Amino acid sequence: MKIGICQFAPVFGEIEKNLTLIERMISSESGVDLWILPELCTTGYLFVSADEASSLAEEFPAGRTARCIVELSADLNTSIVLGVAEKLGTKTYNSAVVFTNGNFVGTYRKIHLFFDEKRWFSPGFEAPKIFQIGDVKIGVMICFDWIFPETARSLALGGAQIIAHPANLVLPFCQDAMVTRSLENGIFTATVNRIGTETRPTKTLTFTGKSQIVDPLGKRLEILPSDSPKVAVIEIDPGKALDKNFNPMNHLFNDRKPELYRL
Amino acid sequence: MKIGICQFAPVFGEIEKNLTLIERMISSESGVDLWILPELCTTGYLFVSADEASSLAEEFPAGRTARCIVELSADLNTSIVLGVAEKLGTKTYNSAVVFTNGNFVGTYRKIHLFFDEKRWFSPGFEAPKIFQIGDVKIGVMICFDWIFPETARSLALGGAQIIAHPANLVLPFCQDAMVTRSLENGIFTATVNRIGTETRPTKTLTFTGKSQIVDPLGKRLEILPSDSPKVAVIEIDPGKALDKNFNPMNHLFNDRKPELYRL
Repeated sequence: MKIGICQFAPVFGEIEKNLTLIERMISSESGVDLWILPELCTTGYLFVSADEASSLAEEFPAGRTARCIVELSADLNTSIVLGVAEKLGTKTYNSAVVFTNGNFVGTYRKIHLFFDEKRWFSPGFEAPKIFQIGDVKIGVMICFDWIFPETARSLALGGAQIIAHPANLVLPFCQDAMVTRSLENGIFTATVNRIGTETRPTKTLTFTGKSQIVDPLGKRLEILPSDSPKVAVIEIDPGKALDKNFNPMNHLFNDRKPELYRL
Repeated sequence: MKIGICQFAPVFGEIEKNLTLIERMISSESGVDLWILPELCTTGYLFVSADEASSLAEEFPAGRTARCIVELSADLNTSIVLGVAEKLGTKTYNSAVVFTNGNFVGTYRKIHLFFDEKRWFSPGFEAPKIFQIGDVKIGVMICFDWIFPETARSLALGGAQIIAHPANLVLPFCQDAMVTRSLENGIFTATVNRIGTETRPTKTLTFTGKSQIVDPLGKRLEILPSDSPKVAVIEIDPGKALDKNFNPMNHLFNDRKPELYRL
Protein backbone atom coordinates (compact mmCIF):
# COMPACT_ATOMS: atom_id res chain seq x y z
CA MET A 1 0.00 0.00 0.00
CA LYS A 2 1.32 3.42 -0.99
CA ILE A 3 0.65 6.33 1.36
CA GLY A 4 1.13 9.87 0.11
CA ILE A 5 1.62 12.83 2.42
CA CYS A 6 1.25 16.33 1.02
CA GLN A 7 2.20 19.48 2.93
CA PHE A 8 1.66 22.99 1.62
CA ALA A 9 0.57 26.49 2.67
CA PRO A 10 -3.17 26.97 2.08
CA VAL A 11 -4.16 30.49 1.07
CA PHE A 12 -6.51 31.84 3.73
CA GLY A 13 -10.13 31.96 2.63
CA GLU A 14 -9.42 30.87 -0.96
CA ILE A 15 -11.08 27.48 -1.23
CA GLU A 16 -10.91 27.32 -5.04
CA LYS A 17 -7.22 28.20 -5.12
CA ASN A 18 -6.48 25.62 -2.44
CA LEU A 19 -8.43 22.91 -4.25
CA THR A 20 -6.46 23.67 -7.43
CA LEU A 21 -3.21 23.47 -5.47
CA ILE A 22 -4.23 20.17 -3.86
CA GLU A 23 -5.19 18.71 -7.24
CA ARG A 24 -1.89 19.78 -8.79
CA MET A 25 0.22 18.42 -5.92
CA ILE A 26 -1.39 15.02 -5.53
CA SER A 27 -1.69 14.49 -9.29
CA SER A 28 2.10 14.66 -9.46
CA GLU A 29 2.42 11.09 -8.18
CA SER A 30 0.64 8.02 -9.49
CA GLY A 31 -0.34 4.75 -7.90
CA VAL A 32 -0.93 6.21 -4.45
CA ASP A 33 -3.56 4.31 -2.46
CA LEU A 34 -4.12 6.86 0.31
CA TRP A 35 -3.38 10.58 0.31
CA ILE A 36 -3.34 12.52 3.56
CA LEU A 37 -3.51 16.32 3.59
CA PRO A 38 -3.27 18.89 6.43
CA GLU A 39 -5.95 20.13 8.82
CA LEU A 40 -8.22 22.93 7.47
CA CYS A 41 -6.33 22.75 4.20
CA THR A 42 -9.06 24.26 2.04
CA THR A 43 -9.82 27.31 4.21
CA GLY A 44 -6.66 28.22 6.11
CA TYR A 45 -6.50 28.33 9.89
CA LEU A 46 -6.50 31.71 11.54
CA PHE A 47 -10.15 32.77 11.60
CA VAL A 48 -10.97 36.07 13.27
CA SER A 49 -14.34 34.84 14.53
CA ALA A 50 -16.82 32.00 14.66
CA ASP A 51 -18.82 33.84 12.00
CA GLU A 52 -15.86 33.86 9.65
CA ALA A 53 -15.23 30.14 10.24
CA SER A 54 -18.90 29.46 9.58
CA SER A 55 -18.88 31.52 6.38
CA LEU A 56 -16.03 29.40 5.00
CA ALA A 57 -17.42 26.06 6.23
CA GLU A 58 -19.10 23.65 3.81
CA GLU A 59 -21.47 20.74 4.06
CA PHE A 60 -20.15 17.24 3.41
CA PRO A 61 -20.78 15.58 1.04
CA ALA A 62 -23.06 18.29 -0.39
CA GLY A 63 -20.62 21.16 -0.87
CA ARG A 64 -18.15 22.25 -3.51
CA THR A 65 -15.06 20.76 -1.81
CA ALA A 66 -16.71 17.36 -1.43
CA ARG A 67 -17.72 17.33 -5.14
CA CYS A 68 -14.19 18.28 -6.15
CA ILE A 69 -12.51 15.62 -3.97
CA VAL A 70 -15.00 12.97 -5.06
CA GLU A 71 -13.97 13.63 -8.64
CA LEU A 72 -10.28 13.79 -7.83
CA SER A 73 -10.35 10.52 -5.89
CA ALA A 74 -12.15 8.90 -8.83
CA ASP A 75 -9.72 10.28 -11.41
CA LEU A 76 -6.69 9.19 -9.41
CA ASN A 77 -8.27 5.94 -8.21
CA THR A 78 -7.19 6.75 -4.69
CA SER A 79 -8.41 7.52 -1.18
CA ILE A 80 -8.03 11.01 0.27
CA VAL A 81 -8.20 12.26 3.88
CA LEU A 82 -8.21 16.04 4.29
CA GLY A 83 -8.97 18.58 6.99
CA VAL A 84 -11.86 20.98 6.35
CA ALA A 85 -14.20 23.42 8.06
CA GLU A 86 -17.51 21.58 8.13
CA LYS A 87 -21.00 23.04 8.42
CA LEU A 88 -23.49 20.68 10.06
CA GLY A 89 -26.86 22.20 10.88
CA THR A 90 -26.14 25.47 12.63
CA LYS A 91 -22.72 24.35 13.87
CA THR A 92 -19.19 24.50 12.50
CA TYR A 93 -16.67 21.71 13.07
CA ASN A 94 -12.96 21.23 12.55
CA SER A 95 -13.31 17.99 10.63
CA ALA A 96 -11.40 15.50 8.52
CA VAL A 97 -13.29 13.94 5.64
CA VAL A 98 -12.53 10.67 3.91
CA PHE A 99 -13.08 9.84 0.25
CA THR A 100 -12.29 6.75 -1.78
CA ASN A 101 -12.48 6.13 -5.52
CA GLY A 102 -15.20 8.68 -6.19
CA ASN A 103 -17.16 8.07 -3.00
CA PHE A 104 -17.54 10.07 0.18
CA VAL A 105 -16.80 7.70 3.08
CA GLY A 106 -17.29 9.76 6.24
CA THR A 107 -16.28 12.51 8.64
CA TYR A 108 -14.33 12.73 11.89
CA ARG A 109 -14.98 15.90 13.92
CA LYS A 110 -12.06 16.96 16.13
CA ILE A 111 -12.88 16.27 19.77
CA HIS A 112 -9.95 18.11 21.40
CA LEU A 113 -10.01 21.66 20.07
CA PHE A 114 -6.83 23.72 20.47
CA PHE A 115 -6.77 27.25 21.90
CA ASP A 116 -8.82 29.71 19.77
CA GLU A 117 -10.43 26.83 17.89
CA LYS A 118 -12.73 26.68 20.91
CA ARG A 119 -14.07 30.08 19.81
CA TRP A 120 -14.49 29.06 16.16
CA PHE A 121 -15.74 25.46 16.28
CA SER A 122 -18.00 23.10 18.17
CA PRO A 123 -16.20 20.03 19.53
CA GLY A 124 -16.84 16.67 17.90
CA PHE A 125 -19.48 14.61 19.66
CA GLU A 126 -18.55 11.12 18.46
CA ALA A 127 -15.68 8.78 19.32
CA PRO A 128 -12.58 8.93 17.09
CA LYS A 129 -13.57 7.08 13.94
CA ILE A 130 -12.18 4.18 12.01
CA PHE A 131 -12.88 3.89 8.29
CA GLN A 132 -12.58 0.67 6.33
CA ILE A 133 -10.82 1.38 3.02
CA GLY A 134 -10.39 -1.79 1.00
CA ASP A 135 -9.09 -4.29 3.53
CA VAL A 136 -7.31 -1.69 5.68
CA LYS A 137 -8.68 0.13 8.72
CA ILE A 138 -7.79 3.81 8.82
CA GLY A 139 -8.21 5.78 12.04
CA VAL A 140 -8.48 9.55 11.84
CA MET A 141 -7.49 12.15 14.41
CA ILE A 142 -6.69 15.85 14.02
CA CYS A 143 -3.72 17.87 15.28
CA PHE A 144 -4.05 18.52 19.07
CA ASP A 145 -5.79 15.17 19.53
CA TRP A 146 -2.17 13.92 19.70
CA ILE A 147 -1.55 15.16 23.23
CA PHE A 148 -4.30 12.97 24.66
CA PRO A 149 -2.94 9.42 24.52
CA GLU A 150 -6.52 8.19 24.70
CA THR A 151 -7.18 9.31 21.12
CA ALA A 152 -4.60 7.15 19.36
CA ARG A 153 -5.23 4.37 21.89
CA SER A 154 -8.97 4.40 21.13
CA LEU A 155 -8.26 4.20 17.40
CA ALA A 156 -5.73 1.40 17.81
CA LEU A 157 -7.94 -0.64 20.16
CA GLY A 158 -10.74 -0.14 17.64
CA GLY A 159 -8.60 -1.83 15.02
CA ALA A 160 -6.97 1.08 13.16
CA GLN A 161 -3.80 0.01 11.34
CA ILE A 162 -2.89 3.49 10.13
CA ILE A 163 -3.70 6.79 11.83
CA ALA A 164 -4.24 9.59 9.32
CA HIS A 165 -3.41 12.73 11.27
CA PRO A 166 -4.02 16.05 9.50
CA ALA A 167 -2.42 18.88 11.48
CA ASN A 168 -1.76 22.62 11.66
CA LEU A 169 1.01 22.53 14.24
CA VAL A 170 2.75 25.58 15.65
CA LEU A 171 4.57 23.83 18.53
CA PRO A 172 7.54 21.46 18.26
CA PHE A 173 6.38 18.49 20.38
CA CYS A 174 3.99 16.51 18.23
CA GLN A 175 6.26 14.77 15.76
CA ASP A 176 8.32 13.08 18.48
CA ALA A 177 5.18 12.23 20.44
CA MET A 178 3.73 10.51 17.37
CA VAL A 179 6.75 8.17 17.34
CA THR A 180 5.63 7.12 20.83
CA ARG A 181 2.00 6.83 19.65
CA SER A 182 3.11 4.46 16.88
CA LEU A 183 5.25 2.39 19.19
CA GLU A 184 2.84 2.10 22.13
CA ASN A 185 -0.01 1.09 19.81
CA GLY A 186 1.91 -0.88 17.18
CA ILE A 187 0.44 1.19 14.35
CA PHE A 188 1.48 3.38 11.44
CA THR A 189 0.92 7.10 11.96
CA ALA A 190 1.00 9.74 9.25
CA THR A 191 1.04 13.29 10.60
CA VAL A 192 0.55 15.76 7.77
CA ASN A 193 1.23 19.31 8.87
CA ARG A 194 0.85 22.51 6.90
CA ILE A 195 3.63 25.05 6.37
CA GLY A 196 3.71 28.82 5.93
CA THR A 197 2.75 31.88 7.92
CA GLU A 198 -0.74 33.31 8.27
CA THR A 199 -1.12 36.98 9.20
CA ARG A 200 -4.63 38.05 10.10
CA PRO A 201 -5.92 41.13 11.97
CA THR A 202 -5.90 39.16 15.24
CA LYS A 203 -2.63 37.30 15.16
CA THR A 204 0.25 35.86 13.13
CA LEU A 205 1.09 32.15 13.22
CA THR A 206 3.84 30.14 11.55
CA PHE A 207 3.17 26.46 10.94
CA THR A 208 5.99 23.99 11.25
CA GLY A 209 5.69 21.33 8.53
CA LYS A 210 7.84 18.24 9.15
CA SER A 211 5.06 15.95 8.04
CA GLN A 212 6.05 12.38 8.76
CA ILE A 213 5.18 8.71 8.52
CA VAL A 214 6.15 6.41 11.42
CA ASP A 215 5.97 2.61 11.39
CA PRO A 216 4.63 0.37 14.19
CA LEU A 217 8.15 -0.07 15.61
CA GLY A 218 8.59 3.68 16.02
CA LYS A 219 10.80 4.14 12.96
CA ARG A 220 10.35 7.35 10.96
CA LEU A 221 9.95 6.26 7.35
CA GLU A 222 9.82 9.87 6.10
CA ILE A 223 10.00 13.38 7.46
CA LEU A 224 9.49 16.42 5.24
CA PRO A 225 11.15 19.85 5.68
CA SER A 226 9.70 22.49 8.00
CA ASP A 227 9.10 25.18 5.41
CA SER A 228 8.61 23.95 1.86
CA PRO A 229 5.62 22.45 0.05
CA LYS A 230 6.28 18.82 -0.68
CA VAL A 231 4.74 15.43 -1.29
CA ALA A 232 6.26 12.08 -0.35
CA VAL A 233 5.01 8.61 -1.13
CA ILE A 234 5.95 5.67 1.07
CA GLU A 235 5.13 2.02 0.52
CA ILE A 236 4.03 0.26 3.69
CA ASP A 237 2.64 -3.12 4.66
CA PRO A 238 -0.41 -2.29 6.80
CA GLY A 239 -0.51 -5.94 7.89
CA LYS A 240 2.44 -5.16 10.18
CA ALA A 241 0.07 -3.15 12.36
CA LEU A 242 -2.02 -6.25 13.05
CA ASP A 243 0.81 -7.90 14.99
CA LYS A 244 0.82 -6.48 18.50
CA ASN A 245 3.62 -8.71 19.77
CA PHE A 246 6.34 -6.36 20.98
CA ASN A 247 8.56 -9.41 21.54
CA PRO A 248 7.86 -13.14 22.01
CA MET A 249 6.67 -12.55 25.60
CA ASN A 250 4.93 -9.14 25.40
CA HIS A 251 1.75 -8.16 23.58
CA LEU A 252 0.94 -4.44 23.48
CA PHE A 253 -2.79 -4.98 23.98
CA ASN A 254 -3.09 -8.24 25.93
CA ASP A 255 -0.53 -7.06 28.50
CA ARG A 256 -2.68 -4.06 29.41
CA LYS A 257 -4.18 -4.18 32.91
CA PRO A 258 -7.38 -2.15 32.61
CA GLU A 259 -8.53 -3.38 36.02
CA LEU A 260 -5.53 -1.62 37.61
CA TYR A 261 -5.74 1.68 35.71
CA ARG A 262 -7.30 4.84 37.15
CA LEU A 263 -8.59 6.52 33.97
CA MET B 1 13.01 20.37 45.99
CA LYS B 2 16.21 18.60 44.97
CA ILE B 3 15.92 15.33 43.05
CA GLY B 4 18.94 13.08 42.76
CA ILE B 5 19.29 10.43 40.08
CA CYS B 6 21.96 7.77 40.45
CA GLN B 7 22.88 5.32 37.70
CA PHE B 8 25.41 2.54 38.12
CA ALA B 9 26.09 -1.10 37.25
CA PRO B 10 24.90 -3.39 40.05
CA VAL B 11 27.00 -6.51 40.55
CA PHE B 12 24.78 -9.54 39.94
CA GLY B 13 23.80 -11.36 43.10
CA GLU B 14 25.95 -9.22 45.41
CA ILE B 15 23.43 -7.36 47.53
CA GLU B 16 25.96 -6.19 50.13
CA LYS B 17 28.34 -4.85 47.51
CA ASN B 18 25.51 -3.04 45.77
CA LEU B 19 24.25 -1.51 49.02
CA THR B 20 27.77 -0.25 49.73
CA LEU B 21 27.99 1.21 46.24
CA ILE B 22 24.59 2.89 46.60
CA GLU B 23 25.56 4.35 49.96
CA ARG B 24 28.82 5.70 48.58
CA MET B 25 27.23 7.23 45.50
CA ILE B 26 24.29 8.97 47.13
CA SER B 27 26.34 10.16 50.09
CA SER B 28 28.45 12.15 47.64
CA GLU B 29 25.79 14.87 47.41
CA SER B 30 24.10 16.65 50.26
CA GLY B 31 20.73 18.35 50.62
CA VAL B 32 18.94 15.99 48.22
CA ASP B 33 15.24 15.56 49.05
CA LEU B 34 14.53 12.54 46.86
CA TRP B 35 16.94 9.99 45.45
CA ILE B 36 15.86 7.65 42.67
CA LEU B 37 17.86 4.52 41.83
CA PRO B 38 17.51 1.90 39.05
CA GLU B 39 15.24 -1.15 38.86
CA LEU B 40 16.53 -4.29 40.61
CA CYS B 41 19.57 -2.32 41.70
CA THR B 42 20.47 -4.49 44.68
CA THR B 43 20.33 -7.87 42.91
CA GLY B 44 21.15 -7.31 39.25
CA TYR B 45 18.76 -8.25 36.45
CA LEU B 46 19.51 -11.35 34.46
CA PHE B 47 18.22 -14.22 36.60
CA VAL B 48 18.53 -17.70 35.18
CA SER B 49 15.32 -18.90 36.84
CA ALA B 50 12.43 -18.02 39.11
CA ASP B 51 14.22 -19.96 41.87
CA GLU B 52 17.29 -17.77 41.53
CA ALA B 53 15.15 -14.58 41.60
CA SER B 54 13.38 -15.90 44.68
CA SER B 55 16.66 -16.75 46.41
CA LEU B 56 17.84 -13.14 46.00
CA ALA B 57 14.49 -11.55 46.90
CA GLU B 58 13.94 -9.96 50.30
CA GLU B 59 10.98 -9.00 52.42
CA PHE B 60 10.15 -5.34 52.86
CA PRO B 61 10.50 -3.76 55.33
CA ALA B 62 11.82 -6.83 57.21
CA GLY B 63 14.93 -7.65 55.21
CA ARG B 64 18.53 -6.53 55.14
CA THR B 65 18.12 -4.03 52.25
CA ALA B 66 15.18 -2.33 53.94
CA ARG B 67 17.12 -1.96 57.20
CA CYS B 68 20.10 -0.52 55.32
CA ILE B 69 18.02 1.99 53.32
CA VAL B 70 16.03 3.01 56.40
CA GLU B 71 19.31 3.92 58.05
CA LEU B 72 20.71 5.63 54.98
CA SER B 73 17.57 7.73 54.47
CA ALA B 74 17.73 8.76 58.14
CA ASP B 75 21.45 9.62 58.00
CA LEU B 76 21.02 11.68 54.82
CA ASN B 77 17.63 13.11 55.85
CA THR B 78 16.27 12.16 52.44
CA SER B 79 13.73 10.02 50.61
CA ILE B 80 14.88 7.09 48.47
CA VAL B 81 13.08 5.10 45.76
CA LEU B 82 14.88 2.00 44.55
CA GLY B 83 14.10 -1.10 42.54
CA VAL B 84 14.39 -4.45 44.34
CA ALA B 85 13.43 -8.11 44.09
CA GLU B 86 10.70 -8.48 46.71
CA LYS B 87 9.58 -11.64 48.48
CA LEU B 88 5.93 -11.53 49.59
CA GLY B 89 4.53 -14.80 50.89
CA THR B 90 5.53 -17.45 48.36
CA LYS B 91 5.80 -14.98 45.49
CA THR B 92 8.56 -12.83 44.05
CA TYR B 93 7.90 -9.34 42.65
CA ASN B 94 9.85 -6.80 40.64
CA SER B 95 9.18 -3.92 43.03
CA ALA B 96 10.15 -0.38 43.84
CA VAL B 97 10.29 0.53 47.51
CA VAL B 98 10.02 3.99 49.01
CA PHE B 99 11.72 5.25 52.17
CA THR B 100 11.76 8.65 53.80
CA ASN B 101 13.83 9.95 56.70
CA GLY B 102 14.34 6.60 58.38
CA ASN B 103 10.89 5.21 57.60
CA PHE B 104 9.67 2.62 55.14
CA VAL B 105 6.78 4.20 53.17
CA GLY B 106 5.58 1.51 50.79
CA THR B 107 5.98 -0.70 47.75
CA TYR B 108 4.92 -0.61 44.10
CA ARG B 109 4.98 -3.98 42.35
CA LYS B 110 5.55 -3.78 38.58
CA ILE B 111 2.33 -4.57 36.73
CA HIS B 112 3.72 -4.82 33.18
CA LEU B 113 6.53 -7.37 33.29
CA PHE B 114 9.00 -7.35 30.36
CA PHE B 115 10.00 -10.49 28.47
CA ASP B 116 11.76 -13.06 30.72
CA GLU B 117 10.62 -11.19 33.82
CA LYS B 118 7.37 -13.07 33.29
CA ARG B 119 9.31 -16.26 34.11
CA TRP B 120 10.96 -14.78 37.21
CA PHE B 121 8.29 -12.62 38.85
CA SER B 122 4.59 -12.43 39.60
CA PRO B 123 2.91 -9.33 38.20
CA GLY B 124 1.81 -6.60 40.60
CA PHE B 125 -1.81 -6.84 41.64
CA GLU B 126 -2.46 -3.24 42.72
CA ALA B 127 -2.89 0.00 40.75
CA PRO B 128 0.24 2.12 40.22
CA LYS B 129 0.81 3.81 43.55
CA ILE B 130 1.22 7.37 44.68
CA PHE B 131 3.18 8.13 47.83
CA GLN B 132 2.88 11.35 49.80
CA ILE B 133 6.34 12.58 50.76
CA GLY B 134 6.16 15.83 52.67
CA ASP B 135 3.75 17.91 50.63
CA VAL B 136 4.64 16.29 47.30
CA LYS B 137 2.93 13.34 45.65
CA ILE B 138 5.34 10.86 44.07
CA GLY B 139 4.06 8.27 41.60
CA VAL B 140 6.14 5.16 41.01
CA MET B 141 6.34 3.01 37.91
CA ILE B 142 9.04 0.60 36.75
CA CYS B 143 10.79 0.31 33.37
CA PHE B 144 8.45 -1.33 30.77
CA ASP B 145 5.43 0.27 32.43
CA TRP B 146 6.43 3.22 30.21
CA ILE B 147 5.07 1.70 27.01
CA PHE B 148 1.53 1.58 28.37
CA PRO B 149 0.36 5.21 28.44
CA GLU B 150 -2.24 4.17 31.00
CA THR B 151 0.46 3.80 33.68
CA ALA B 152 1.73 7.38 33.73
CA ARG B 153 -1.83 8.62 33.05
CA SER B 154 -3.15 6.71 36.07
CA LEU B 155 -0.43 8.19 38.26
CA ALA B 156 -0.99 11.72 36.99
CA LEU B 157 -4.77 11.54 37.32
CA GLY B 158 -4.22 10.23 40.83
CA GLY B 159 -2.32 13.42 41.65
CA ALA B 160 1.33 12.44 41.16
CA GLN B 161 3.56 15.46 40.56
CA ILE B 162 6.73 13.49 39.96
CA ILE B 163 7.01 10.00 38.51
CA ALA B 164 9.96 8.09 39.94
CA HIS B 165 10.80 5.55 37.24
CA PRO B 166 13.50 3.01 38.08
CA ALA B 167 14.54 1.14 34.92
CA ASN B 168 16.80 -1.53 33.45
CA LEU B 169 16.42 -0.56 29.80
CA VAL B 170 18.03 -2.39 26.91
CA LEU B 171 16.05 -0.69 24.09
CA PRO B 172 16.41 2.91 22.86
CA PHE B 173 12.78 4.12 22.88
CA CYS B 174 11.92 4.90 26.49
CA GLN B 175 13.75 8.16 27.12
CA ASP B 176 12.03 9.96 24.25
CA ALA B 177 8.69 8.44 25.19
CA MET B 178 9.06 9.76 28.73
CA VAL B 179 9.30 13.30 27.30
CA THR B 180 5.84 12.66 25.87
CA ARG B 181 4.65 11.19 29.20
CA SER B 182 5.74 14.37 30.99
CA LEU B 183 4.13 16.63 28.43
CA GLU B 184 0.81 14.81 28.04
CA ASN B 185 0.39 14.62 31.82
CA GLY B 186 2.00 17.89 32.88
CA ILE B 187 4.31 16.12 35.34
CA PHE B 188 7.98 15.67 36.14
CA THR B 189 9.39 12.27 35.24
CA ALA B 190 12.71 10.86 36.45
CA THR B 191 13.77 7.73 34.59
CA VAL B 192 16.77 6.17 36.31
CA ASN B 193 18.34 3.44 34.22
CA ARG B 194 21.24 1.17 35.07
CA ILE B 195 24.36 0.80 32.97
CA GLY B 196 26.78 -2.05 32.29
CA THR B 197 26.66 -5.51 30.79
CA GLU B 198 25.47 -8.67 32.52
CA THR B 199 26.67 -12.01 31.24
CA ARG B 200 24.91 -15.02 32.68
CA PRO B 201 24.71 -18.66 31.48
CA THR B 202 21.44 -17.90 29.65
CA LYS B 203 22.11 -14.58 27.98
CA THR B 204 24.11 -11.34 27.84
CA LEU B 205 22.42 -7.94 28.13
CA THR B 206 23.81 -4.41 27.95
CA PHE B 207 21.86 -1.68 29.71
CA THR B 208 21.71 1.75 28.22
CA GLY B 209 21.91 4.38 30.98
CA LYS B 210 20.87 7.88 29.87
CA SER B 211 18.96 8.45 33.08
CA GLN B 212 17.00 11.67 32.77
CA ILE B 213 14.71 14.18 34.42
CA VAL B 214 12.00 15.83 32.30
CA ASP B 215 9.84 18.77 33.37
CA PRO B 216 6.06 19.13 32.85
CA LEU B 217 6.64 21.06 29.60
CA GLY B 218 8.65 18.21 28.11
CA LYS B 219 12.04 19.81 28.67
CA ARG B 220 14.92 17.49 29.59
CA LEU B 221 16.54 19.02 32.65
CA GLU B 222 19.29 16.39 32.73
CA ILE B 223 20.41 13.36 30.80
CA LEU B 224 23.31 11.19 31.95
CA PRO B 225 25.72 9.26 29.70
CA SER B 226 24.91 5.79 28.40
CA ASP B 227 27.83 3.95 29.95
CA SER B 228 29.28 5.54 33.08
CA PRO B 229 28.16 5.54 36.70
CA LYS B 230 26.98 8.98 37.67
CA VAL B 231 24.76 10.99 39.97
CA ALA B 232 23.05 14.26 39.10
CA VAL B 233 21.02 16.53 41.33
CA ILE B 234 18.40 18.86 39.88
CA GLU B 235 16.36 21.46 41.71
CA ILE B 236 12.72 21.48 40.65
CA ASP B 237 9.50 23.16 41.73
CA PRO B 238 7.00 20.29 42.05
CA GLY B 239 4.22 22.89 42.26
CA LYS B 240 4.60 23.32 38.49
CA ALA B 241 3.06 19.87 38.05
CA LEU B 242 -0.15 21.03 39.74
CA ASP B 243 -0.94 23.43 36.88
CA LYS B 244 -2.50 21.43 34.06
CA ASN B 245 -3.17 24.44 31.83
CA PHE B 246 -1.33 23.77 28.59
CA ASN B 247 -2.28 27.29 27.46
CA PRO B 248 -5.00 29.77 28.52
CA MET B 249 -7.66 27.75 26.64
CA ASN B 250 -6.53 24.13 27.11
CA HIS B 251 -6.36 22.04 30.27
CA LEU B 252 -4.66 18.66 29.98
CA PHE B 253 -7.13 16.90 32.25
CA ASN B 254 -10.39 18.87 31.88
CA ASP B 255 -10.18 18.70 28.07
CA ARG B 256 -10.21 14.91 28.14
CA LYS B 257 -13.37 13.32 26.72
CA PRO B 258 -13.65 9.99 28.56
CA GLU B 259 -17.18 9.52 27.23
CA LEU B 260 -15.75 9.37 23.69
CA TYR B 261 -12.80 7.09 24.35
CA ARG B 262 -12.79 3.37 23.60
CA LEU B 263 -10.39 2.07 26.28
